[in-house]
Amino acid sequence: MPKRIKRSKKAGLPPGTPIHIGEKRTEKTRIQLISYDESGFFEQEAEAAEEYCAARTATGITWVNVDGIHQIDLLQRLGGCFGLHPLVLEDIVNTDQRPKMEDFGDYVYIVLKMLTTNGGGEIVAEQISLILGQNFLLSFRERESDIFNPIVERIRNAKGLIRKEGADYLAHAVLDAVVDRYFGVLEKREEEIDLLEDEVIADPTPRTLQNIHTLRRDLIFLRKAIFPFRSVIGALERGESPFFKQTSRIYLRDIYDHTVHIIDTLETFRDLATGLLDIYLSSVSNRMNLAMRTLTVIATIFMPLTFIAGLYGMNFKNMPELQWRWGYPAVLLLMAMVAISMQVYFRRKKWF
Amino acid sequence: MPKRIKRSKKAGLPPGTPIHIGEKRTEKTRIQLISYDESGFFEQEAEAAEEYCAARTATGITWVNVDGIHQIDLLQRLGGCFGLHPLVLEDIVNTDQRPKMEDFGDYVYIVLKMLTTNGGGEIVAEQISLILGQNFLLSFRERESDIFNPIVERIRNAKGLIRKEGADYLAHAVLDAVVDRYFGVLEKREEEIDLLEDEVIADPTPRTLQNIHTLRRDLIFLRKAIFPFRSVIGALERGESPFFKQTSRIYLRDIYDHTVHIIDTLETFRDLATGLLDIYLSSVSNRMNLAMRTLTVIATIFMPLTFIAGLYGMNFKNMPELQWRWGYPAVLLLMAMVAISMQVYFRRKKWF
Amino acid sequence: MPKRIKRSKKAGLPPGTPIHIGEKRTEKTRIQLISYDESGFFEQEAEAAEEYCAARTATGITWVNVDGIHQIDLLQRLGGCFGLHPLVLEDIVNTDQRPKMEDFGDYVYIVLKMLTTNGGGEIVAEQISLILGQNFLLSFRERESDIFNPIVERIRNAKGLIRKEGADYLAHAVLDAVVDRYFGVLEKREEEIDLLEDEVIADPTPRTLQNIHTLRRDLIFLRKAIFPFRSVIGALERGESPFFKQTSRIYLRDIYDHTVHIIDTLETFRDLATGLLDIYLSSVSNRMNLAMRTLTVIATIFMPLTFIAGLYGMNFKNMPELQWRWGYPAVLLLMAMVAISMQVYFRRKKWF
Amino acid sequence: MPKRIKRSKKAGLPPGTPIHIGEKRTEKTRIQLISYDESGFFEQEAEAAEEYCAARTATGITWVNVDGIHQIDLLQRLGGCFGLHPLVLEDIVNTDQRPKMEDFGDYVYIVLKMLTTNGGGEIVAEQISLILGQNFLLSFRERESDIFNPIVERIRNAKGLIRKEGADYLAHAVLDAVVDRYFGVLEKREEEIDLLEDEVIADPTPRTLQNIHTLRRDLIFLRKAIFPFRSVIGALERGESPFFKQTSRIYLRDIYDHTVHIIDTLETFRDLATGLLDIYLSSVSNRMNLAMRTLTVIATIFMPLTFIAGLYGMNFKNMPELQWRWGYPAVLLLMAMVAISMQVYFRRKKWF
Amino acid sequence: MPKRIKRSKKAGLPPGTPIHIGEKRTEKTRIQLISYDESGFFEQEAEAAEEYCAARTATGITWVNVDGIHQIDLLQRLGGCFGLHPLVLEDIVNTDQRPKMEDFGDYVYIVLKMLTTNGGGEIVAEQISLILGQNFLLSFRERESDIFNPIVERIRNAKGLIRKEGADYLAHAVLDAVVDRYFGVLEKREEEIDLLEDEVIADPTPRTLQNIHTLRRDLIFLRKAIFPFRSVIGALERGESPFFKQTSRIYLRDIYDHTVHIIDTLETFRDLATGLLDIYLSSVSNRMNLAMRTLTVIATIFMPLTFIAGLYGMNFKNMPELQWRWGYPAVLLLMAMVAISMQVYFRRKKWF
Repeated sequence: MPKRIKRSKKAGLPPGTPIHIGEKRTEKTRIQLISYDESGFFEQEAEAAEEYCAARTATGITWVNVDGIHQIDLLQRLGGCFGLHPLVLEDIVNTDQRPKMEDFGDYVYIVLKMLTTNGGGEIVAEQISLILGQNFLLSFRERESDIFNPIVERIRNAKGLIRKEGADYLAHAVLDAVVDRYFGVLEKREEEIDLLEDEVIADPTPRTLQNIHTLRRDLIFLRKAIFPFRSVIGALERGESPFFKQTSRIYLRDIYDHTVHIIDTLETFRDLATGLLDIYLSSVSNRMNLAMRTLTVIATIFMPLTFIAGLYGMNFKNMPELQWRWGYPAVLLLMAMVAISMQVYFRRKKWF
Repeated sequence: MPKRIKRSKKAGLPPGTPIHIGEKRTEKTRIQLISYDESGFFEQEAEAAEEYCAARTATGITWVNVDGIHQIDLLQRLGGCFGLHPLVLEDIVNTDQRPKMEDFGDYVYIVLKMLTTNGGGEIVAEQISLILGQNFLLSFRERESDIFNPIVERIRNAKGLIRKEGADYLAHAVLDAVVDRYFGVLEKREEEIDLLEDEVIADPTPRTLQNIHTLRRDLIFLRKAIFPFRSVIGALERGESPFFKQTSRIYLRDIYDHTVHIIDTLETFRDLATGLLDIYLSSVSNRMNLAMRTLTVIATIFMPLTFIAGLYGMNFKNMPELQWRWGYPAVLLLMAMVAISMQVYFRRKKWF
Repeated sequence: MPKRIKRSKKAGLPPGTPIHIGEKRTEKTRIQLISYDESGFFEQEAEAAEEYCAARTATGITWVNVDGIHQIDLLQRLGGCFGLHPLVLEDIVNTDQRPKMEDFGDYVYIVLKMLTTNGGGEIVAEQISLILGQNFLLSFRERESDIFNPIVERIRNAKGLIRKEGADYLAHAVLDAVVDRYFGVLEKREEEIDLLEDEVIADPTPRTLQNIHTLRRDLIFLRKAIFPFRSVIGALERGESPFFKQTSRIYLRDIYDHTVHIIDTLETFRDLATGLLDIYLSSVSNRMNLAMRTLTVIATIFMPLTFIAGLYGMNFKNMPELQWRWGYPAVLLLMAMVAISMQVYFRRKKWF
Repeated sequence: MPKRIKRSKKAGLPPGTPIHIGEKRTEKTRIQLISYDESGFFEQEAEAAEEYCAARTATGITWVNVDGIHQIDLLQRLGGCFGLHPLVLEDIVNTDQRPKMEDFGDYVYIVLKMLTTNGGGEIVAEQISLILGQNFLLSFRERESDIFNPIVERIRNAKGLIRKEGADYLAHAVLDAVVDRYFGVLEKREEEIDLLEDEVIADPTPRTLQNIHTLRRDLIFLRKAIFPFRSVIGALERGESPFFKQTSRIYLRDIYDHTVHIIDTLETFRDLATGLLDIYLSSVSNRMNLAMRTLTVIATIFMPLTFIAGLYGMNFKNMPELQWRWGYPAVLLLMAMVAISMQVYFRRKKWF
Repeated sequence: MPKRIKRSKKAGLPPGTPIHIGEKRTEKTRIQLISYDESGFFEQEAEAAEEYCAARTATGITWVNVDGIHQIDLLQRLGGCFGLHPLVLEDIVNTDQRPKMEDFGDYVYIVLKMLTTNGGGEIVAEQISLILGQNFLLSFRERESDIFNPIVERIRNAKGLIRKEGADYLAHAVLDAVVDRYFGVLEKREEEIDLLEDEVIADPTPRTLQNIHTLRRDLIFLRKAIFPFRSVIGALERGESPFFKQTSRIYLRDIYDHTVHIIDTLETFRDLATGLLDIYLSSVSNRMNLAMRTLTVIATIFMPLTFIAGLYGMNFKNMPELQWRWGYPAVLLLMAMVAISMQVYFRRKKWF
């Protein structure tokens, strides 16, 4: 597990001090500049601050995508060009944020979580910050990822509406790409639930228990990451930010529907996971009950028999039965009768 | 189980791209055209796009019912005639939708779930999409079903108000038909609960546990399918869509009442199902307790007896008791006394 | 249990088709007519439709009480006289209704549940429908009952305000009579809870478990029957229906208070019932624990002793201890020491 | 337990009929009259109706405190003097009330519960009714108590603001006195929780279980008694009653804060009590587990040993081992090896 | 544990009587005076009342920080200078307060909790009261602490905006310092949860149970201390107090976000802690099940064997098998067959 920088490190610092909170990283920050309008398209990897500051004043729509948020000085220079409030910079580099939307007059600041499943089936969360202004969009990711590639492709090829619409449509496309990924994460959980459901009834083991626990943890985590985003997207859809035009809002409503659907599904999964644990406990109880009954049946049959055998194994001189000719067969008969009557008793009680 | 196409397949595609999500199907899509007004009635199975596009401009009320949503091109042509927004088409073919209502100005788009019970007692859910315009109604189902037949019959025979009222009354009739089916599904669950209730107290088996789990799953599923429909129908009833006239709203209120009643009943079932699991667990505990006590009683009586027998089965040369004349009867008496006093002890403790 | 007609029977019928849903009945419907004003009073059992249609136009206040709702044709004729909407008639004969209030302009329609306890301690629910118009009240019950008798008596004897006030006061008196009965049903449940509470701690049996389950079922049922009535009476009290005059509303507030108090109490009972089940489970666990410890103590003492006895019961030729003079007493001493040290061990561990 | 008169007794009576519901009592009702203004003070035990009716018209502030509500006629005469609505009288004598506030135009009627702990640690609830008019306050208690003494003392000695302010300040003082007592009841519960917490982990007995149950019952009861009072005092603080002047409302806000704080604490206690039960169950499970393991270890070691001993206790003629010289020591060695290897096995599994 | 003075002590006292409720203390109260404006800075430890009363009328911003609230007379004198309402003084010295905000016209009164973790990992809560007026801030703490030092330092060195902004910015800095500490407390809990999670699955002991219980207690406590603060800071952020200027509110929104995030995290922790207990119970059940099966297997194999051995240990004269030449090997073979078939049976049932 990579080393994380914790939030408590910030206690005592004045507000607006940007401290990178999250996984420690060493990769170089990559800044991708895309400018476009209906007629043209320009793309560049920016190295120097002048390059992206120039982008600020370009005509058409400008999209600055920053991959890597641990180089504080670089972000501060970028923030300077675009007139970002110190509190925004502080929030961008603090990856321990709750999804939120904040209107700063000149731009609106949106934070949300990108969720994917890694090779081992674990959920990976990454924070994405968006700054939407009049004709620009800044996006900040913790590291490079392929999630924005289809959007860039659509810009390059002028596919769909993207080159005809404004920066708000671009922001919507980015939000949509992030939310679409949530479905994959949910489907993974659904598969797990189906597997666990079979396992918990057929053959519950301590391993099953641990898997149920991990599933519940994941669901709690997902809920925490997605739930607050509903009110963010709801507020945008209701038009609380002037940067989203009426025509874009119909698309935001679409994202809002997806988000509500995802949260619904999460609630359903949560109920199912709780159900799984109940079934697990009941299954274990059932098996214990079975073992207990088997033991009781065995003990109840053999204890009296062993006692009778022990009785006639005593060495008293004066035990007349021992001398009887039919003593041994009589005792065997007695034992058989005891065993059979016990069995009849248990069968009547439906014990096996 | 039929193969399903999952939602994650859509990640990365631009919004408004219609992808069929749901069970893979191969049947041909059937398009049923019904035009009517107070004086006349016309019915046709449409084959070519021109036929249903012509329907758009007919006088009177037009109802286009589409059974099968997997032929994307056909739906796109239909959408073209009726001026449907790409997002609507995308939603119609995505059967993994939450019930919702969306106003697009020229028409209102309503999605809900049709629920029935199949032969094996399982719940079958199918998505129904409605497009209600000024004088037309489009309805989309995943496959053919007999649910709309009584409505068609009423139109044919001019029974009730249906030929006198507008497209909104027709939409109400369709919604009513779907919601009425919910009651049958609920009654099936009620029967199951009654059966399980008897079983869980009289003779709980692991099979009972699995049935309780399936019941709970079904209830969670039903809740997810029906709950959001309440706010849909509530919004329509409050007149949030101009396509429902004041006179139709009294009927919508009726459907709203049914929906609230169904959700109430679902909540009740949920509480009952939780209660069943509690009783199951308690019953298993009870039986385990019983087995445990039986075992304890048997062991507590026979262990001392077996020990005494073992004692006098020892082969020490010098064991004077063995030579006594009344040794054997005395030991038998001792054993009887031990057994009786143990029994008295347990009876006093009310152990059996 | 009497045969019930289920709601799913209605699927496919046009809205406003009255189908009697509930217990099948054969008694004749009884229609009771009462007309009164401050000066006079008139009472009659109506047989023919003309009689109660005439009542519609009488001066003063008219109360038509109908006992029995299974004769659809009779109700339709009555509905005709008083101008009832088909949906209202449909709801009156459908006893599977949620308490609700609906304003139809000329009259307000109120549905609620009458709850009583029968001889066997079971809750009996009956649906009561009220139609309150300008100067008339229609009331519909599933069968005859004595619940309205005190009100009729007060009208006969001009006791209290009833003859001086309007139809709204009469409706209030009817609602009050129904809600007052709820307290008796609650008190019955309270007695049960007290009984179960003693039982669950002193001597929990499977019978106790079943009683707790029945109690919880009853509470769920009561909640479902009473909870929606709160918003009905709340809406009336806030003056949402013009048929209740300002002076009557102070009495509605009284009923509202009672309803809230009853729901509060139901919630409390629910918490208590959940507590009972927890205690039951804990009690069973406790007893199992006790049995387990007894068994463990017995086994731990006698197993080593029996082993030692078995050891010296072996028939090896060469076992010198068997020949020793003090061998037998020495073994007895050893056994006593083992038994005593085990006892000391368990006492120290506070096991018995 | 004193005999109680139950609420169901009232079913069928017209509204506004005062019936004393609560503990049956025989003490004489005591009526205490206090009149005061900034300059003077007058105090009297009223015997005849004329005395307190005269008080109604006195100058300054009049406080009539009534201890005992079972003498209906006396209360009716008092109600007559002060113009109380029949429903108010009915509510005053019905001690089974939910805390509430009702505005009757000429006065406001407030009901709340006084809670104290008796010698046996049980909660005693008593209903207190207040009628606040322009310059008078009526207070009704079920029996005498010392709770108002400090207020009377402050009036006598003109301590604080009480003689300078109006009847609303007096009402506030009464409410404050009642709510202040709640803290004592809560602290008692807190002590119980602390005690139970130690007990449940150190040495859980069936007695502990019963105590947890009683605690939960008490908390449910307290919640029911206090929770509705929050909205009462909230409504008063927001100025919904004209009888509380702006200057008094700052003091009501203080009481409101106390009430919210008490409800918060109750919720916390509830969570803690639920936690206690969880811990109890887990503790019992733990101990059962321990007993089970001990038993298993003992049985697993001694059963094979006893079997081996039994084997060589058989009386077959032809058992060569019995004749061997080292047969006995060899068997002893075998037994020791079995016992030791079992122990090693369990130690590895960390079973003891 | 230090002696605490309980709240019930106050019952019966008139409102506005300041009584110190909380830990008994003996340290001298320390009063720190800081005055500053953009150009200058002045700092002093005040001893006499005149000193801090003078501060009231100083130009620039005045911050009076009081450490220790048990010297009632001193606080009363201070309250006199700054015109504090008696109810405010009463609340300041009562450390058993719920976080709240109250507007008194001339100043706003804010109470909140400072939370830290002491050496033993326990949560320490301390009450902080703030009085924010036009150009002054009073802060009251229960004892000295280093939490305000960074703020004082920023004032001294004119770092950041603090010297340029008003008293509201100072208040914000104080609130921010307190809330920042919450993160540390949460991170400590997170570490505990991680530890417990490993423990509960790998090796659950009664100690684990106690730790889970302590964790849940802590979370309940934290929730109670932090939850009400959300609405306090929310109200301030929405501008309900005129003392916070528009420019400061953007910083309050930042604190609000932190608080919401903290509460979110607490809810998550709560769910996780509940999950831990479920896992604990399941783990214990699992281990019991394992012990039970082991016992059953052992008993089921050895009981029949011991019985057979006992059978041939009987001393009947006439037992022909005993005389057979191959009797002993035959019995050994029989025993081996019994043992093997039992093992096969259990293996098939997957019991070990």
